[in-house]
Amino acid sequence: MGSTSKPRVIIVGGGFGGLTAAQALKDAPVDVTVLDRSNHHLFQPLLYQVAMAGLSPADIAAPIRSIVGSQQNTRVLLTSVDGVDLDHRLVHTSDGPMPYDFLILAAGARTSYFGHDDTWGPHALGLKSLDDAVEIRRRVLMAFEAAEKEPDAARREALLTFVVIGGGPTGVELAGGLCELSRFVLDRDFQAIRGGHARVLLVEAGDRVLPSMDPALSKNATAELRRLGVEVRTGARVTNLDETGVWLGTNKVSSATIMWAAGVRASPLAEKLGVPLDRGGRVMVEKDCSLPGHPEVFCIGDMANHSHQTGQPLPGVSPVAMQQARYVARLVETAPQGEVRPAFEYVDKGSMATIGRSAAVVEMGKLRLTGLTAWVAWLAVHIWYLIGFKNRMVVMLTWAWSYLTYKRGARLITGGLKEIPAMAVQRKPGAKAASADATAAPPA
Amino acid sequence: MGSTSKPRVIIVGGGFGGLTAAQALKDAPVDVTVLDRSNHHLFQPLLYQVAMAGLSPADIAAPIRSIVGSQQNTRVLLTSVDGVDLDHRLVHTSDGPMPYDFLILAAGARTSYFGHDDTWGPHALGLKSLDDAVEIRRRVLMAFEAAEKEPDAARREALLTFVVIGGGPTGVELAGGLCELSRFVLDRDFQAIRGGHARVLLVEAGDRVLPSMDPALSKNATAELRRLGVEVRTGARVTNLDETGVWLGTNKVSSATIMWAAGVRASPLAEKLGVPLDRGGRVMVEKDCSLPGHPEVFCIGDMANHSHQTGQPLPGVSPVAMQQARYVARLVETAPQGEVRPAFEYVDKGSMATIGRSAAVVEMGKLRLTGLTAWVAWLAVHIWYLIGFKNRMVVMLTWAWSYLTYKRGARLITGGLKEIPAMAVQRKPGAKAASADATAAPPA
Repeated sequence: MGSTSKPRVIIVGGGFGGLTAAQALKDAPVDVTVLDRSNHHLFQPLLYQVAMAGLSPADIAAPIRSIVGSQQNTRVLLTSVDGVDLDHRLVHTSDGPMPYDFLILAAGARTSYFGHDDTWGPHALGLKSLDDAVEIRRRVLMAFEAAEKEPDAARREALLTFVVIGGGPTGVELAGGLCELSRFVLDRDFQAIRGGHARVLLVEAGDRVLPSMDPALSKNATAELRRLGVEVRTGARVTNLDETGVWLGTNKVSSATIMWAAGVRASPLAEKLGVPLDRGGRVMVEKDCSLPGHPEVFCIGDMANHSHQTGQPLPGVSPVAMQQARYVARLVETAPQGEVRPAFEYVDKGSMATIGRSAAVVEMGKLRLTGLTAWVAWLAVHIWYLIGFKNRMVVMLTWAWSYLTYKRGARLITGGLKEIPAMAVQRKPGAKAASADATAAPPA
Repeated sequence: MGSTSKPRVIIVGGGFGGLTAAQALKDAPVDVTVLDRSNHHLFQPLLYQVAMAGLSPADIAAPIRSIVGSQQNTRVLLTSVDGVDLDHRLVHTSDGPMPYDFLILAAGARTSYFGHDDTWGPHALGLKSLDDAVEIRRRVLMAFEAAEKEPDAARREALLTFVVIGGGPTGVELAGGLCELSRFVLDRDFQAIRGGHARVLLVEAGDRVLPSMDPALSKNATAELRRLGVEVRTGARVTNLDETGVWLGTNKVSSATIMWAAGVRASPLAEKLGVPLDRGGRVMVEKDCSLPGHPEVFCIGDMANHSHQTGQPLPGVSPVAMQQARYVARLVETAPQGEVRPAFEYVDKGSMATIGRSAAVVEMGKLRLTGLTAWVAWLAVHIWYLIGFKNRMVVMLTWAWSYLTYKRGARLITGGLKEIPAMAVQRKPGAKAASADATAAPPA
C-alpha cells in the first residue's frame, strides 16, 4: 500500500472540518490519519433534538470509521491529543508521539462560562456533545418525575422552571423544544402536574434574540417563541447561578434545570500551541488558514479566528469549517510549501434557526423566510446534510411520526436513578410524603 | 376523580409482568400505582441487539408513562422500593411509605455470579438493563479501537478475544451477534486489524447449549454458531475470572472483554419480605401466585417460583410473567379476598433463540424449526410484540437496512473516553508507540 515517502497528514478532530478535509484528500497521494477522542462524528445542528428527546443519539451521529474508514489512504485512531511540537513536527497523543508533514487542527470548541467554569459549569448544562445532550434529557425528564411527586408548592415550581441562557440559535431551539416537550408530550403522561405549570425562560444579555440575524427575523422569532409559551427576557444579565436557580441582576429565578447556550471557547489544544490567540481562545490564523511561521500547519473551524475578509472573525458554523477544510486539502494536495497561496474566502450561504415544530427563520443573502416556509426549508437542509442515508430515513420517519402524534420515542432516562441536585428534591422534615392514593391531591 | 374507597393496587416493577397487570386493570374500579426505579419499559428479548450495536436504546424501550400514563385509574411514580411491611400493608419507598389494599410484586431478576458477585461482577459484564447493554457496546467497540493501535501481539490477541459465559438464549445470541459484528462490520472499518483475528468463545458448563430446548435444536444451534466462527465450549466450568481473562478449569483464556449470561437471581426485594425463597432468591408463591398467608400480595414473573404445575419452577420468560399478570389482575378485580381461587396455569407457547442474522431455532409444542424459517418466525414474533407502533417501524427499517448493508448505525461509544481495564491496554515500557505512518505495519 504505497511507499513511505508519501507525505503524512494528521487531522485532529472528526467534526465537520476534520472529516471534510479527510474526504477531500481521499484520492491525494498522502497518508491521512484522523485523531479524535470520540469514535463518532456528530451532526451538531440537531443536537438539541436529542436533548429534547425528539431523536436518539444514533440518529445524529455516525462512527468516524464508517465515514472515512474505507478510504485506502486514511487511518482513524481513537486517542486524545495532548499537544503539538511545532518545531519537530510531532503530535503528542495519549498513545505516544506521531510525526507529520502536514497538520490540520480542527478540534472545535467547548462550552465556556466566561471565567465562571468552576462555579457555574456544574449547574448550567452545556450542549456540545452527545453526552451533554443525554444529560440534559435526563435532567429535564427527572425534573418532571420529581415534580410529579413533590408535595411542596415552591419546590414543585422550581422543578418545573427551566432557564435557557443565551439567545443564539441553540438557545432559541432549546427553549422552543422545551415548551413543546412540556406542553404536548409530558402533560399527557403526568397526573399530578399539568402543562400550565411548566415555565421556560430564555435569557439573552443583548437587546434581541438571534443577534447575528436580521432584526426583522429576531422579532419574528420572539413572537413565535412567545406563542409557544417561552418567556423571552432580552437585556437580562446573568449575575450568578447555582443549584437553586439563576440571578438576573438582583432578581432570583428559582430553577432546578439551567441550560447554557451563551458561549463557547476554542479547544484547550489551541493554548498549547504557543501561538497568538483571540479572547475566545481561537488561533489567529493567516489568510491561508495556516499558523504564523508554519505553512505546514493549518487551523480551521471553531478553533480558528480567520478575520482577514471583513475584520471580524468568521462565525462558528459548519459551512465555514467545511469550506476551510476543502481549501486546506487543496493546498496540501497541490501547492508545494513556500509557494504563494491564494487567501481563503468564505462564501456565506445564509443561516437559519428553528422554533418548535412548524416555525423557523431563514436568512440567505437578501432572502428572508419565516413561519412554515422557513421550517420546511430548515427541515430539507438538515435532512439533506445528515451524514448517512439510513440516518436520513430514520430521522424523517421519526419526525413524521412525532409530527403526527407528538409522541417522543427517545424519552428515556438512562444512567440509573441518579438524583437531580439536592435542593430541588430534598423535602423539609415533616412534609407530606407521596401517597399511592391519587385522591389525596387537593380537590380540583 | 373517584372516591377514596376504591381499592389501592400498587404494582412494583414496569417490566412485562407489571405493565401487563396495569393494563389488565385499566377498566377495573381500583386505583393503580406503578412504581419503578427506571422510567422506561424494556423489551428485554432484544437487549442483546443494543449490546451488539444493531439497535439504539430507544428502539427497544418505551417510557412507562407513555404505555399506561393515559389510563384514568393509573399513576406512575419513578422511585425505588426499599421494602414491604406486609402486616401494615405499606410499601416503603425512597419517597416515603405508601399504603395498599393489593400489592403485585413484579420486580424481576438481576445478574448473579453464583456467590462471586464482588470478585467476578466487576469483570464479567451482565446484560439486564439498557445501561448494561450500552456498557457492553462501549467495551466491545473500545476493545477494537485499542487493538487497532496495540503493537504488542499478545495484548492485541487478548483485546480481540471475547468470552461469553452461559449457553442459554442470551449467551447464544450475544456470541452469534459478536461474530457478525466483528466479521462483517468492524473488519471493514479497521486498517491494522482484520477479522481473522477476533475470537469469540461461548462457554457452557452443561453438555449442550440451549439446555432448555430439544437436543436436536441444541445441535443445530451449535452448528450454526460454529459456521459463524464461534468457538463453542460445552462442559467447561469457569473456575475463576478477572480483568485479564477467564480460567476454564486450569486453562486460562486471556480476554479483555468477558460477558456473563450464566445466571440471574430474583430482585433483592424478595429477601426483604421475610417469606420462604428458593435458591435463586425467588419467592415460593402459592398456587394463586400469592404470598403464603397474604392473599392480597402477589408475586409474579422472574421474582417468583411457581412450581405447582410440574414440580419445576416456571421458566424466567416474559410469557410466564404476562400470563400471571392477567391472572392476578382478574383476581384483584373480581374475587373478594378469602374466596377459593382457581390455581394459575401456564400455557407454554414455545421458545426460540436467534443465531446471527439468518438462523434461529424455534420450539412450539411438537413443532421444531431451524435455519431461515425459524429466523423469519423469530423476527415476526419479536417485531409484533415490540411495544409501540413507531418502534416496530423503526426497528424493521433498521434491520432491513442492516441486513442489506451490514452497516450498524448505533455503533457509538458514549460516556467519554473511559479506558477499558488497565491490563489490556497498558503498554510495556519501551514498546513501540502507535505511529501515524500506516506503512510501518509489518509487510503482509
